[in-house]
Amino acid sequence: MKLEFWFDFASNYSYLSVMRIRSLAPDGVVWRPFLLGPIFKDAGWDNSPFVLQKDKGDYALRQDMPRQCAKYGLPWRQPSIFPRNSLLAARVGLLCEDQPWMLDFCERVMLANFAEDRDIDLACMTRILSELGQDAAAILRAATGDDNKARLRARTEQAKAHRIFGAPTFLLGDAMFWGNDRLEDALAASSSQSAGGIAR
Amino acid sequence: MKLEFWFDFASNYSYLSVMRIRSLAPDGVVWRPFLLGPIFKDAGWDNSPFVLQKDKGDYALRQDMPRQCAKYGLPWRQPSIFPRNSLLAARVGLLCEDQPWMLDFCERVMLANFAEDRDIDLACMTRILSELGQDAAAILRAATGDDNKARLRARTEQAKAHRIFGAPTFLLGDAMFWGNDRLEDALAASSSQSAGGIAR
Repeated sequence: MKLEFWFDFASNYSYLSVMRIRSLAPDGVVWRPFLLGPIFKDAGWDNSPFVLQKDKGDYALRQDMPRQCAKYGLPWRQPSIFPRNSLLAARVGLLCEDQPWMLDFCERVMLANFAEDRDIDLACMTRILSELGQDAAAILRAATGDDNKARLRARTEQAKAHRIFGAPTFLLGDAMFWGNDRLEDALAASSSQSAGGIAR
Repeated sequence: MKLEFWFDFASNYSYLSVMRIRSLAPDGVVWRPFLLGPIFKDAGWDNSPFVLQKDKGDYALRQDMPRQCAKYGLPWRQPSIFPRNSLLAARVGLLCEDQPWMLDFCERVMLANFAEDRDIDLACMTRILSELGQDAAAILRAATGDDNKARLRARTEQAKAHRIFGAPTFLLGDAMFWGNDRLEDALAASSSQSAGGIAR
């Protein structure tokens, strides 16, 4: 069974996992972009816990992320805006999640946000889609159409139904693995299950 | 510089780290038992986030902990009470943190809580201290004396001053490492600094 990779383009720990997929999961994952905002809102929070809990946020963004990026050989620039609005990126990601270039798209959006300190807005999406040789205007039109907007709302409801509370989250049937630190364990469980073993 | 290991006897992820110290840090750590409750209270929470955020708590205690314990070869029994009252254990731990048997004490308290599903109360402390060949009555009298109570309050204020927001937390000078998942990184930084390197 292929691993489902639930993530938000605004999430810094999702950045780490997206950037590690290419080498750790050469057979790919099932992409599940979603929005954390509505999940946090249900928990009674009007913003990221890394903003609401300043000590935790400062630790995560100013100590842990630089060290983790150094460990993985990934670039890191302290975002001047956190969390960035990831609505448009999520809509494009959802629309394109089955495309063969989805990993390239995700990597470039994450690098814009966390290595280049750029907004992941309309201009950024247009540039990245064009660089990938896609018809940016057509994709953005479909991504912001009513059908796709409704699909993203449904996706986020699915996240709630799975009791997802953060990102990245890896799902393998009923088994949940939360956080970039569990990516290896999740992939091992996925391989074990594919080989006829028991995932949990 | 020796690593400071800040932990709460009620914290399940502190259990994992306590049990891994013997093999990972044969030269020991600087023990810093403290209470998370006042930290959570300052954050506006009247209980553990694993109780207040039920989805997160269920994930941590029913999925992640069993798998992590299996990975580390540690016993695990779903605690029937979570979090347990760790006030007395913290007072005894604080009083005895420089004793050569501190690691033995910590391991036994953690095993009582998370492998045997037992309260870490007066009876438990008496049994463990006696098993360690100590004068349990004398230690418990000193641990619950006004001086030691004040020391524990001061310790928790120190945790706040360090901007500690969870447990386990490892401190190496100004560098903070949060969570059992960072124990290896923290110890590597400690070794690197002892060898004349730069910790961060």
